[in-house]
Amino acid sequence: MKIGIMGLGTVGTGVVQLLEGDQRFEIRRIVVRDLHRPREIDLSGYELTTDPLSLVSDPEIEVIIEVAGGLSPARELVTAAIRAGKHIITANKALIATHGPELFQLAAEHGVVILFEAAVAGGIPLISTLQHGLLANRITRVAGIVNGTTNYILSRMEREQIPFATALAAAQAAGYAESDPTDDIEGNDVSYKIAILASLAFHAPVEVRQIYRQGISGITDLDIKLAAEFGYRIKMIGLAQPVKRAAGGGPEQVDVRVHPMLLPASHPLAGVDGVNNAIFINGSAVGEIMLFGPGAGRMPTASAVVGDLFNLTSALEIPDFSRYFRTRIEGPACSILPIEETENAYYIRLQTRDIPGVIGRLGTAFGDHEVSLHSITQKGVAADGSATIILVTHRVREQQVQAALEKIRSQETTQQIGVVLRVLV
Amino acid sequence: MKIGIMGLGTVGTGVVQLLEGDQRFEIRRIVVRDLHRPREIDLSGYELTTDPLSLVSDPEIEVIIEVAGGLSPARELVTAAIRAGKHIITANKALIATHGPELFQLAAEHGVVILFEAAVAGGIPLISTLQHGLLANRITRVAGIVNGTTNYILSRMEREQIPFATALAAAQAAGYAESDPTDDIEGNDVSYKIAILASLAFHAPVEVRQIYRQGISGITDLDIKLAAEFGYRIKMIGLAQPVKRAAGGGPEQVDVRVHPMLLPASHPLAGVDGVNNAIFINGSAVGEIMLFGPGAGRMPTASAVVGDLFNLTSALEIPDFSRYFRTRIEGPACSILPIEETENAYYIRLQTRDIPGVIGRLGTAFGDHEVSLHSITQKGVAADGSATIILVTHRVREQQVQAALEKIRSQETTQQIGVVLRVLV
Repeated sequence: MKIGIMGLGTVGTGVVQLLEGDQRFEIRRIVVRDLHRPREIDLSGYELTTDPLSLVSDPEIEVIIEVAGGLSPARELVTAAIRAGKHIITANKALIATHGPELFQLAAEHGVVILFEAAVAGGIPLISTLQHGLLANRITRVAGIVNGTTNYILSRMEREQIPFATALAAAQAAGYAESDPTDDIEGNDVSYKIAILASLAFHAPVEVRQIYRQGISGITDLDIKLAAEFGYRIKMIGLAQPVKRAAGGGPEQVDVRVHPMLLPASHPLAGVDGVNNAIFINGSAVGEIMLFGPGAGRMPTASAVVGDLFNLTSALEIPDFSRYFRTRIEGPACSILPIEETENAYYIRLQTRDIPGVIGRLGTAFGDHEVSLHSITQKGVAADGSATIILVTHRVREQQVQAALEKIRSQETTQQIGVVLRVLV
Repeated sequence: MKIGIMGLGTVGTGVVQLLEGDQRFEIRRIVVRDLHRPREIDLSGYELTTDPLSLVSDPEIEVIIEVAGGLSPARELVTAAIRAGKHIITANKALIATHGPELFQLAAEHGVVILFEAAVAGGIPLISTLQHGLLANRITRVAGIVNGTTNYILSRMEREQIPFATALAAAQAAGYAESDPTDDIEGNDVSYKIAILASLAFHAPVEVRQIYRQGISGITDLDIKLAAEFGYRIKMIGLAQPVKRAAGGGPEQVDVRVHPMLLPASHPLAGVDGVNNAIFINGSAVGEIMLFGPGAGRMPTASAVVGDLFNLTSALEIPDFSRYFRTRIEGPACSILPIEETENAYYIRLQTRDIPGVIGRLGTAFGDHEVSLHSITQKGVAADGSATIILVTHRVREQQVQAALEKIRSQETTQQIGVVLRVLV
């Protein structure tokens, strides 16, 4: 089988390595951005080009492996390739999250398939589990750690008791974070991934830009230490669950969001350290299952790409096989529950003036908005006379917490609302 | 689609429940052992029969769901059904482990498929992960907890500090162990499951009866307590790994075995409690992944059976689709590494007379056989003057340990070799 590859970064290099010496495949052409960049592997046997459309116009190429990432020119290439009757294997979460439904539709019209196991959680067989393994289930929740960079940073902050900025610099030095880390630390990467998982789970489009996201840059080593004292660990979580279901079975509204969360230390996700990923899926029949493994990296991600290629190859022996691999994400997009209407428990760190009556004022402000407090604790007083106060609430609707915080923000004793984190209960 | 079901026990009942109201399927007939047994669900809409072959002779039945278990009459039914051109979905681990290769071959000859996701680890998508998700990998290890009964017993022994017999009785009372618990507690059930996983991982038959197995009935609550003191938890483990690989890539010899094992308390498998299952898979590209979830029970197992049915249904739209689902376990059976040649660390509990020099004698016996000791600890003296001694070795070949124990058994100070358990290192 003749294939074309677009992209020769980390994942693309892994794919070339895995296919090396496999007589069943011929890599016809590899699209790179820079023909003269030094590469880690010997590419003398391959034709390199900077022209993505040369993959499309080559009539002998049956399958295009798109591992360049980003929306452009990936979208144009994939669209043209589908129209030219080529199958697509991609690791591109942004592309699938943003344009998946229209691309799947186009692929169905042209009798080709789009496989994207590598787009979420690297080599963990998560997409196929949702698409095939759990077909007999209504999915009632998908939640997990799907970004290795933030998990690495939070793990190091906790283990070494270092500030966010130091851990970020360490992640960058170790190659786990980009020089511009925004997409990872502000939750954009997770929002792409949870959009894909949610759209597969609920069989309907989920619009990425509607997804609430909170990053981890506001979390301090003090928060991590205090969370530990309360029996929690802080993890960056992507979450998707239906809120209400229509008569036909599909969800009317879905709760999809991305934010750090305090997890009880005994929760299995709390023990997932470093760049690993772990995802819980709840199904109506199966109950709760968890998948765990390396969520990124050259060979784990290449394992998913090449796994898709091998599955496709064995299917290609069969006439009209493509229907089996069809991804159906159709109909109007899900309505996403506004974050103000979600229900959580909350961990809140405040800075106040250390004068008598402060605790009472805080308690009253929450009480006035019917926020029930689990605990309120003063953690020492700084040299400037400011006190750090930690509040943990019971489960409550977010808008009530926000209203109480609005009130507290206007109290003259309040110096700063440090961080507000949701707690898994 | 018209289907026939053989077996209406726990899993069969779950399958009927999951398919209820699904207009795409018609359950033509259900084979039961006893027509008059009271059932938990309303069966008034279904035809019950005691004749398995009536499923085969019904030309309208396209798919037979075999959830009766056991080798006979399941084997005869499945064989006849394949010859009659019917697809098979089964949860029968004994059948697949014992006769899988010949049945897969027969199915290929007749253009039908055998799906068996439910045969190992209930609703966890483990079979499809090995067959499809990790296709790009050489599998270098499969290891895990795949028997809920033994895990439940060991969990209760640990949590409540109760003897094996008490925990077994509790498991029986809770419906997690059979009245004759031999298959579970002596490792037969695990040997079926690990045989299936190993044959899929190594693409060659693995003969169940060649697999070494050690049960958990010899483990005392003292062992669990002492293991905890050493930082370990005891779990029943099924393990499969290649030993040497032939030039062609297939394994020449495989290390497949079933026994309880001491796992470091920090190991993710150590935290798996109750009737849950968890399986680690190591692949050459993906690294290490873990799948976790309910390994048995009505709805989790039915989820896997009905998931297979839904996948099959979507594939049946495609002419000649069956090749995609073909399970290839061919060629001569793997040669299994004799247990004497495996390498492990060991936990050994002995009863000796409490006289000076005993520790020295034990140390010398191990030293003479080049077994390096990690620790040797005396744990108290009983009223009869006997001492309990715990030895933990470094990694060593099993036959050296056995030879040392042979020597120790003959020492006049030795009263009993209580238990010998392998330690994951």
